[in-house]
Parts: sequence; C-alpha cells; structure tokens
Amino acid sequence: MASNGPVQQPGANGDVKNAETPTTAAQRQVNLQRIRDQAQRLKGELHENLNKHLDELFESFVAEVELIEQGSTSNGFPVSSKSVIIKEESLNKHKSRKDGDLPDKVFVNRRSVLTELFEINHIRTIYHIFVAILVVFSLNTIIFDWVEQGRLVLDFDLIQWGLGKLPKVMALWVCMKLSTLLVVYPAFYYWSNNRVPGKPRLMDYIWLVLYILYECLFLVLPIKYVTENELPPASTLIIACEQLRLCMKTHAFVRTNMVRLLNHKKDDSKDSEGDEMPTSDSRCPGFSKYLYFLFAPTLIYRDSYPRTHSIRWKYVVSNFTQVLACLMYTYYIFERFCIPYFRKFNKDHVTPKALMLSAFGCMLPGTLVLFIGFFAILHSWLNAFAEMLRFGDRLFYKDWWNSTTFSNYYRTWNVVVHDWLYTYIYKDFCRLFGHQNRAAAMALVFLISAVFHEYVLIISFGFFYPVLFVMFAGAGFGFIFLTDKGSSRSWNVFLWVALFIGNGLLMCLYSMEWYARKNCPVNSDSFVDYLIPRSWTCMI
Amino acid sequence: MASNGPVQQPGANGDVKNAETPTTAAQRQVNLQRIRDQAQRLKGELHENLNKHLDELFESFVAEVELIEQGSTSNGFPVSSKSVIIKEESLNKHKSRKDGDLPDKVFVNRRSVLTELFEINHIRTIYHIFVAILVVFSLNTIIFDWVEQGRLVLDFDLIQWGLGKLPKVMALWVCMKLSTLLVVYPAFYYWSNNRVPGKPRLMDYIWLVLYILYECLFLVLPIKYVTENELPPASTLIIACEQLRLCMKTHAFVRTNMVRLLNHKKDDSKDSEGDEMPTSDSRCPGFSKYLYFLFAPTLIYRDSYPRTHSIRWKYVVSNFTQVLACLMYTYYIFERFCIPYFRKFNKDHVTPKALMLSAFGCMLPGTLVLFIGFFAILHSWLNAFAEMLRFGDRLFYKDWWNSTTFSNYYRTWNVVVHDWLYTYIYKDFCRLFGHQNRAAAMALVFLISAVFHEYVLIISFGFFYPVLFVMFAGAGFGFIFLTDKGSSRSWNVFLWVALFIGNGLLMCLYSMEWYARKNCPVNSDSFVDYLIPRSWTCMI
Repeated sequence: MASNGPVQQPGANGDVKNAETPTTAAQRQVNLQRIRDQAQRLKGELHENLNKHLDELFESFVAEVELIEQGSTSNGFPVSSKSVIIKEESLNKHKSRKDGDLPDKVFVNRRSVLTELFEINHIRTIYHIFVAILVVFSLNTIIFDWVEQGRLVLDFDLIQWGLGKLPKVMALWVCMKLSTLLVVYPAFYYWSNNRVPGKPRLMDYIWLVLYILYECLFLVLPIKYVTENELPPASTLIIACEQLRLCMKTHAFVRTNMVRLLNHKKDDSKDSEGDEMPTSDSRCPGFSKYLYFLFAPTLIYRDSYPRTHSIRWKYVVSNFTQVLACLMYTYYIFERFCIPYFRKFNKDHVTPKALMLSAFGCMLPGTLVLFIGFFAILHSWLNAFAEMLRFGDRLFYKDWWNSTTFSNYYRTWNVVVHDWLYTYIYKDFCRLFGHQNRAAAMALVFLISAVFHEYVLIISFGFFYPVLFVMFAGAGFGFIFLTDKGSSRSWNVFLWVALFIGNGLLMCLYSMEWYARKNCPVNSDSFVDYLIPRSWTCMI
Repeated sequence: MASNGPVQQPGANGDVKNAETPTTAAQRQVNLQRIRDQAQRLKGELHENLNKHLDELFESFVAEVELIEQGSTSNGFPVSSKSVIIKEESLNKHKSRKDGDLPDKVFVNRRSVLTELFEINHIRTIYHIFVAILVVFSLNTIIFDWVEQGRLVLDFDLIQWGLGKLPKVMALWVCMKLSTLLVVYPAFYYWSNNRVPGKPRLMDYIWLVLYILYECLFLVLPIKYVTENELPPASTLIIACEQLRLCMKTHAFVRTNMVRLLNHKKDDSKDSEGDEMPTSDSRCPGFSKYLYFLFAPTLIYRDSYPRTHSIRWKYVVSNFTQVLACLMYTYYIFERFCIPYFRKFNKDHVTPKALMLSAFGCMLPGTLVLFIGFFAILHSWLNAFAEMLRFGDRLFYKDWWNSTTFSNYYRTWNVVVHDWLYTYIYKDFCRLFGHQNRAAAMALVFLISAVFHEYVLIISFGFFYPVLFVMFAGAGFGFIFLTDKGSSRSWNVFLWVALFIGNGLLMCLYSMEWYARKNCPVNSDSFVDYLIPRSWTCMI
C-alpha cells in the first residue's frame, strides 16, 4: 500500500516523455492532472490505513495493559476474575448477535467528546465565540445599568428568586442523601446477609414491597415539603432532579446486587450476568463502593470503575466556572428573550398570530438554552465530578449534534440516563417478556423517559401542562420511524429544524402558561383548575 | 519510532510480575497509568510524524509532477522558463529573509478552507444548523403571511426594492466591462508595441497620464449615472464594488506588464521580478489572457494560473444556490432585527439609553450578516466562478475566525484583496521608498483599504458618515499593536468581542442615519447637509 504513491511517479514521467509534440500538450496536461488526483487519493488512503493500523495496534496494546492492570487489582477480588469478566463482556457483545442476549455497558477510560473536539482549533474558536457573546451580554447589562441608574447594579434577581430558599433546598437534599445512605444500604445489607439462600421466599417479597414503599415515600415526601414551603422553580428543579437521580441510583444498586445474590447459589464465583460476586464473607458490596457510586457520574452500578491517575484541580475549577458562566447565559437569555414578551400575558397572546410570533421568536433562544444546559450539566458538571472522583469513563454524551436519525439523537444526547434506561428497563423488559417484544420495550423506555421529564416540569412549575410529554411521546417517538431510514447527512438538517421548532414551542408554551397563572384570575378552586391550562382560558 | 509502543509492552509486563504483594498494587496502578499515558503520547507523535513524512513525500511528488507539467506547457512560452520561475519564486521566498526582498504570491492548486473543513462531520453539522435556521426563518415568514393574509405572499419587497432598476445596473456594468476590454487593452497593446525601448520617455509619461485619467473617469462616470438614475442601495453597491474590482484588475494588468516591458531590454528572457516575458513578436500578453484575468477570481495578474482538470457543474450550481440562500438570510435578518427598530427613527433614538440598546441589539445580527456576506461572496461566489473557469487556487480566505491578532485577521479575512494590496501597494511602496519604511507602507495599505471601504458605503447609501473609516483607521489599526503581542489562544475571544461590538455599532449607526435621512426634514439644501449626520441633528 505504502509503495503505491512513489510507484506511480516513474509512470507519470514516462507519460510526459513519450508525448513530445506540442499538439498533445492538452492531453498530457489531462494525464498529469489525473495522476495528481490519483496521488492525492492514494495519499488519503495511505493516511487512513496507517492511522487505522496504528489505532488497532494502540488499542490492542492498551487493552493488554488494562487486562494486566485490572487482573492485578486487589480490591477484594481474585486476580483472575476481573479479566475473565472483561473477556466475557466482550464475548457477550459478540454473542448478542447470535442468541439475542443484549450486551452490557463496558466502562473504559475515555475523555468527553467535546474535550477532544476542543483540541481542534476551529471548534475551539466556536467555544470562544460563545464566550465572546457572553462577554457582550454582560457588557450590555453592565453599561445599561450604568446609563439607566448611574451605578453598577449587578443584581441577578431572576437567579436569586429562582434559586431562593436555598437553605431549605440544602436541608432537604441532605435528608434525601442520608436516607439513601442510612436506610437503603443498611436494609439491603441486613437482607443480603440474613436471607436463606435459594429461591425467593415470602420474606424476600416482603423486603421487595418495603423497597417499593421506600421509593414511593422518597418521591412523595420531598414534594410535600416543596409545596408546603413554596420553593421557587429552580430550587424545585434541583429537588426533582435529585429525587430521580437518587431513585435511579438506588434501583441500580439494589437491582444489580439483588440479582447477583439470588443467583449466588447456582454458581458460586459469578452470576448469570457475568458480574463478579463479592467475597463470600460479605454478600453485600462494601459501603465505600456504594458511597462512591452515589457520587460518581454514572447510573450503572459496578463494584469498581476505571479510574484516572490523579486529580487536576485546575480542570475542576475551570469546569465549575463553565457551569457558572452557563447559568449567567441562561439568565441573560431568559431576561432578554423570554420575560419581556410574556410578562404581560393576557388574552391578546392567544390569537394565532401572537402565538405564531412568540413560538418563532422563542426558537433560537430556546435551542440555545437547551444547548447551554447540555454543556453545563452533561459536560462541565459531570466532568468536574468525574475529575474529583478520578472517574475514568467520561462518555456522558456522544456527538448527538451530528445525528441524522431521531433514535440516534435519543441514544447519544444523554448517555448516562440512556445507559440506565437501557440496562434496567429495556434489558430487564426483554429478559422478562422475551426478545420478540423489543418494540414494546422501546415504547416503555420512551414512556418512562417522557413521564420522568414531565414529572420534573410539573414539580418545578407547579402546574400540569404536558406539552413536553405530547412532543416526546408523539412527535419524538414518531420521528424515530420517519427518520430511521435516512442515512443521508441531510437528515441532520431535518433533525435540527425539528429541534428548533420543538424548543421554540416548549419555551413559548410553558412561559405563557407560567405568566397566565400569574396574571389571570383563578376560575375555580378545584383540582380541575390545576389541570386545565390557564393560558387557554385566560380572559383578561 | 514505530517500534517504541510495542517495545514498552514487555516492560509493563515485567513491572507487573515483579510486584506481587498486594501493598504495591496502588504503585503498580500508577505505573500502568503512566505507561498508558506514555503510549497515548507516543501514538500521537507517531501519527504526527508519519503524516508529516507522508505530506512531505506527497508534496515533493506533486511538485515534481507540476514542474514536468508546467515545463512542457506550450502556451507560447519556452519549455524551460516556467520551471525556472517556480524555482526562482521559491528562492525569492527564502531570499526575502536575507536581503529584505519581499516574496511574490505563488499560485498553486488548492481548495478553500471551508471546503476542506466541511469534510469534518462536526463542522458540516454547523453548516446544517445554519441551513436549519434558514428553514425556520422561511417557515416563520410563510406561516405568518398565511395567518395574517390567508395566502402565501412571498414578496421579498426589500430585496426587490434594494436590487431595483436592475436593467440599468446591467447596462452600466456592461459598459464598464467593455471599457476595460476595448479601451484599456487596445491602448496598452498599442503602447507596448510602439514604444521606443529603453528608459521611460515623454511619450511614456503621456500614456501614464492618460491611464490615470481613464481610471478617474472610470470612477466618476458611473457615479454620475447612479445618482442621476437614483439607483437603490444594493444596485449601487454592485456598481461600486465592480468599479473597484475592475480598477484593481486593470491596475494589476497594466502595472505587471508595464514593468515587464520597461525592464525588457535589460534582460531579454526575464525581468527583475522573475516574471516571464511574452514571446518577442508580441510585447503584450494575448487578449485571451487578459480576458481570463478579468473574470478569474484573483486580482494578481499572471499569464497563466494552475488550472483544474474539469468543471463540476453540480458544484457550481450548489455554490450559486448558497449565494441565493445567503441573500435570503440577509433579507430575513434585516427584516426582523433591523427595520422594525429603526424605521420609526426620531429624536427619541438619540438618547444614550436608546443608542446603547440598539447597538447591543444589533451586535449578533450584524456579525451574522458579516459572516453570511463572507460566506456568500468569498466562499460561494468565488468558488462558483473558480470552478467555471477551472481556476485552481481557491485560497480566497484563510481561517480568520481562529485569529488571535488583528493583523492576522486582516491578512486572512480576504486573501484576494489582501494579495492585491500587498503586491501592488505594500511591495511597490517598499520598492520606491525603501524597506525601512514598512510601517508607513502598512499605514498606506490601511488607509487605502479604509478609503475603498468607505467609498463603497458612501456610494451605496448616498450619504457621508465615516463610521467604518473611523473604526478601520482608528480602532482597527490600533488593535493591531494591542493584540500583536498576544499569541495566546484566548486573544481570540478579544477579537470576537471586538468584532461583535464593531459590527453592532456599524449596523446600528448606519441604519439610524439611513432612516434619519428618510424621516427627518432637511435642515438646509447645502452640501454641508450631505456631510453632517442627520441622525445627530434630527429634531422630530
């Protein structure tokens, strides 16, 4: 392969020498052009092949080093078990195509997509443009305040109000965290060490009911607290997200270790899923592992994860700075594009024309908020925590912006949650109801995801207006089948148009409902009023 | 180099085997992490080295092919002359560092930066996002018209008005083009074939005066026609740009061939600049070369340029489609962000607060217009013409968006014009006044560039309001010295902030002046009124 380029050269020389008369000059030029094009192509192929080769070489080398490393880790496991697991996991991946068994998530040391992309000059410049826009927004606010009031104001009343009653939020959060630490783990520890080995018995079912009861209380009690204390939206948003996150975490822990324990007797060294078994003197993983899992930026429970060598505190600080900057960005966008248009909501807003104008006006800001929220949470926040916990696998998202199909977009947008849904919903559903029900499993995943999203919005806003649910379960689900056939890159344009329209509608409709509930009088005091969108019935 | 990776591996193995006790597990892990990092770094280096090697190999191969090809080209030149020039040009480049002689522009077959960048998935997605935003804007207009008027309107009155009286523009353009073809070339042909060889004489100076007279008439007469027929701004913009373009083209042609002819007797085969001489029977290049130069997307005259193999008409069509799409984009931006705010200009706009608000409101749209204008003209339009003319050198701009210094931004933003300014202003100035006056030469280039830009705006808008000139010659020139020391990538943020603020001010101030001149009564009928900004003195 590598010798093709130079081999062509004498041929080119020969061509030229054979054609000596001026009349064939054009022909010769054509030939030479062709040779040059060919050389360019060959060069590209050569590059590609060499790089591929090099990648393979490197991957195999790293895999070997990794195997040695993990095999020799002495975190309470036998030296050989871990490497067996890795092999089994990779076997599983291949097997899945034969017997329909679905592959497990494999954790490896890797950086986030944007971390790698930012090393490209041109992509880094896009980041700089966003920073420049933030600087311009800030300058705008500062100078405007200075002109208007003759002094620097710098009051972020929206943020202050939205994140109000923060001490109460912190207290509630500590209680929630403590309950997962001091209720779930001890209970599971007690159950795992005291259950009679063998098939599930009555006692096990009672424990299961208790567990489900706990999860229900975990969802209900904080909501009660939130509504009683009338926490503002952003504070409530934090609580709702933490509820769901901790629920998913405890489910992952209980689900993984429960199955492991139930399968314990069948095969002493490992269970049917290929997960390793804790040492026989303790049937429950150590508390430190549970604690690490509760803070680690993943929702899939493993006894150990690939770890990085050290903590770069500068990187942690820069990531938290980015989170703060994104918060400012969101503030500016809301303050500038959302609040002025909807603050004075009245029945004039309900005409088709006004609705249309607001929806289209919200499309760019709405999508910007989505993108900034993604960057703040799924890139900066998770990377900061991963760095502090030396968590190696930073693939929290993939390159969803390049998606040409909606299914790919859903899979790549939030890998952390997607992995949880895939492992504990999709796979478990397939295991229970058979692999022929994959479509039903997918629909269930969609439903649960849509319900979770809507749940967060209902709790945060304090009203029921299932726009997101309708979009998610309706258009979003439908688009999967519409775009799934499209492998052409131009479907990416369709995806972005759909994202723009979707985000515009979301931002516009939720803002309208929010201000309608502020400005319009209550029709009745019944529960029905809570369900009927006020922006539809507003009469002032 | 290539064996370093694998060589490391036995070492890693050995490390692991030597450390058998559990207490050294952490140490071992650290070692392994280090090995993995080292391997990653080695892989990077290997990649880089291989690619560099490959690039060099390929470059030398292409250069050889090119030499053979150009040596054998029979476009009226001796077989050996061209290859000598290439060598001399590359010698010049090296020489320039020794004796201060400035290098010449070298034309080579190469693609535009964006053409290459669009092959990266992530950059292509950014293009798709722009397309999606255009689709959303169009949908907005269509649906709004449909809701408002019950039918599709699709009248782009702004474009229709701005580009009004197009037949007159076409007629004027044809006259301008014909004058460069039927006046400049025949006159130069006559002079070159009839002058007495040797040092410049009286006759030559008379011809020079006639040439300067022609250029003056070329600038004055179309303006007279434009003002008499009251052409709208976009039509006038076309005329003004074409005036300057054709002026620069004729200057390049006359300047290059004049010097070549004046130096003719000194050295029969080539002149002091290393340019080749036409065959002795004709001292002026063939008409076809002049014609090709007039249409080719370059302002530097050469008797021949690197050419591509064939015309990809699909590519031409796609580029013109992009130009049209960019026109629509500009229309939407003006219609949405500019006209509604300034249409009703009155004295309320002149308060500091209103001024501030409009300036900041214009920053994002203004920069977007700049970027879209850049893409439409410097990428799509020039690429379409280059493709149709099989013009090989597509480096019309470089990656200005990555610039960290203003001088780099000015050099890379518009390579076509920069090359002209560099070759025919900067180099000629240095040649005339010595190389110690480089700062003066740079200032002159800036001044001419600023005057040209301001000229276009004055002609297009029909009023004198030198905001761009002040920015260009003031802030823009000053920033060169401010940012020139900054090699850190974060200066790129400063550049973008400056671009945002500059474009915001430009768009805001020119729009205000435009509508002030429409809405505010004329103070006096004198020429002074033409010079005093109406937006400053508006009293309604």
